[in-house]
Amino acid sequence: MSFLDHIARCNNADLGQFEPWFVGRRRAGFVHRSFAPVLATRPDLFARRDEAWHLSPALETPAARTQAVRAFLLELRDRGQFGKLWREEPYAVAWNFGDPPLMEMERAAVPWFGVRAFGPHMTGYVRRPDGLHLWVPRRSYDKPTYPGQLDNTVAGGQPAGIGLHDNLVKECGEEASIPPDLARQARAVGYVSYLHQSGPQLKPDLMVCFDLELPADFVPRANDGEVHGFELWPVERVFETVRDTTEFKYNCNLVLIDFFVRHGLLSADDPTFVEIVAGLKRDVPPPP
Amino acid sequence: MSFLDHIARCNNADLGQFEPWFVGRRRAGFVHRSFAPVLATRPDLFARRDEAWHLSPALETPAARTQAVRAFLLELRDRGQFGKLWREEPYAVAWNFGDPPLMEMERAAVPWFGVRAFGPHMTGYVRRPDGLHLWVPRRSYDKPTYPGQLDNTVAGGQPAGIGLHDNLVKECGEEASIPPDLARQARAVGYVSYLHQSGPQLKPDLMVCFDLELPADFVPRANDGEVHGFELWPVERVFETVRDTTEFKYNCNLVLIDFFVRHGLLSADDPTFVEIVAGLKRDVPPPP
Repeated sequence: MSFLDHIARCNNADLGQFEPWFVGRRRAGFVHRSFAPVLATRPDLFARRDEAWHLSPALETPAARTQAVRAFLLELRDRGQFGKLWREEPYAVAWNFGDPPLMEMERAAVPWFGVRAFGPHMTGYVRRPDGLHLWVPRRSYDKPTYPGQLDNTVAGGQPAGIGLHDNLVKECGEEASIPPDLARQARAVGYVSYLHQSGPQLKPDLMVCFDLELPADFVPRANDGEVHGFELWPVERVFETVRDTTEFKYNCNLVLIDFFVRHGLLSADDPTFVEIVAGLKRDVPPPP
Repeated sequence: MSFLDHIARCNNADLGQFEPWFVGRRRAGFVHRSFAPVLATRPDLFARRDEAWHLSPALETPAARTQAVRAFLLELRDRGQFGKLWREEPYAVAWNFGDPPLMEMERAAVPWFGVRAFGPHMTGYVRRPDGLHLWVPRRSYDKPTYPGQLDNTVAGGQPAGIGLHDNLVKECGEEASIPPDLARQARAVGYVSYLHQSGPQLKPDLMVCFDLELPADFVPRANDGEVHGFELWPVERVFETVRDTTEFKYNCNLVLIDFFVRHGLLSADDPTFVEIVAGLKRDVPPPP
């Protein structure tokens, strides 16, 4: 592995296998050609024209869209479409963070509809006399996704109806027992985005990177069963583990590479410096 | 002004007014339609086909290209094409930093040929008990470009044949009397890129951002006449001056906005957070 390999691994999507879907004139996401026949069973909801799918314009409000699509998704769930991943956790549907949501959609369905998911990913670090150290969690071995892999110190998806920083503070408490007053000191310092494909699912996601300098005597503690345990690693060990292995969950590598860049651990004279930094931010061009 | 206004101001180019030029199959830059007739006077050097200009394939090596184009540029200089800006400072011609240069070209000609220029831009800062402070220089009032404007602490163009960090160390000495041992502690922490047009000239440039934490008792001192003087400003004053004014040279605003992002001065819940961070990096898609 190398940093560029991680970027390529996160950006493995072949968009040629997908068609966009729209709410009015705004692109909401992408559906895989192999999943599209499922949409075609509901012409009252989805119509195909010009190589794209269009949600029924009769659904005039975000609430109406959310309700009608949810009823359809519940049918799919009952037919086993989402395995055990249904969470009753609504995500906002909007390609650009901050745009008014077109509707909401259950998290488990989001990658089937190639809707862009957002989330805060925080690196908790300690400045010790012997150098920078990072708190590295291992995901619980019974998590449904990526069990046992290494993770960012605190990370979560972004449900509808809560701010990014408030969501991070909540996740800091749940995942690492970081008290709210300390978690509020976390700082948004950038973002990473990528186009990840897993079979018919597309994750064109954007994670906002946060840094939090933690006191030397603070020890994060798993609180909600999502984390197996935390270890404090010298930054060099994190650097080498990211560079040389796939032990971290795939997208967490990008957040850590961004951390390494911002903290000056790469050289400007590395001939791949610009390619690495550029590769941390991928997007799909807006529709014409 | 706003941060997004600065991004738009740096990215004012209308690429529809330009045509690309190639060395073999590699794009070297862009020429404005109003400058293209000058190339057309030298069919031995430049041929136009498929809405693009192509340097003569008879020039097989970087040295041959450099020499032949230089002779042409000297003629243009003698006809007054470059005003007083000719510097005898060769730049490498390569769209991607780190690619083997296709040739070299005098700095004064670079924006006429829309060749991507590179350079290190460093923010020198001090952590004081009363908060972060930045060393802000004002450009000399008799500089040929942007006289009297505010600038990044140390910044320079990237001549051919020297590394970025070595170039920065040299500029640190010349522009701010920062000794080499201290300047070497500067860290590359990212880059900004933009597509700036000034009449027929195109600057599709990329500046590598460096941070250098300076000791509280160090005072930079103008050394080569390029800087009028330095002042130490609280970061809030720099933030407000960037946000609300055009006192800084246009591209220096992007370097400072990148600094503000990386140092956590923007909120993730600012609805323009992602747009601002994304806007700091613009590129032209590679040719098909």
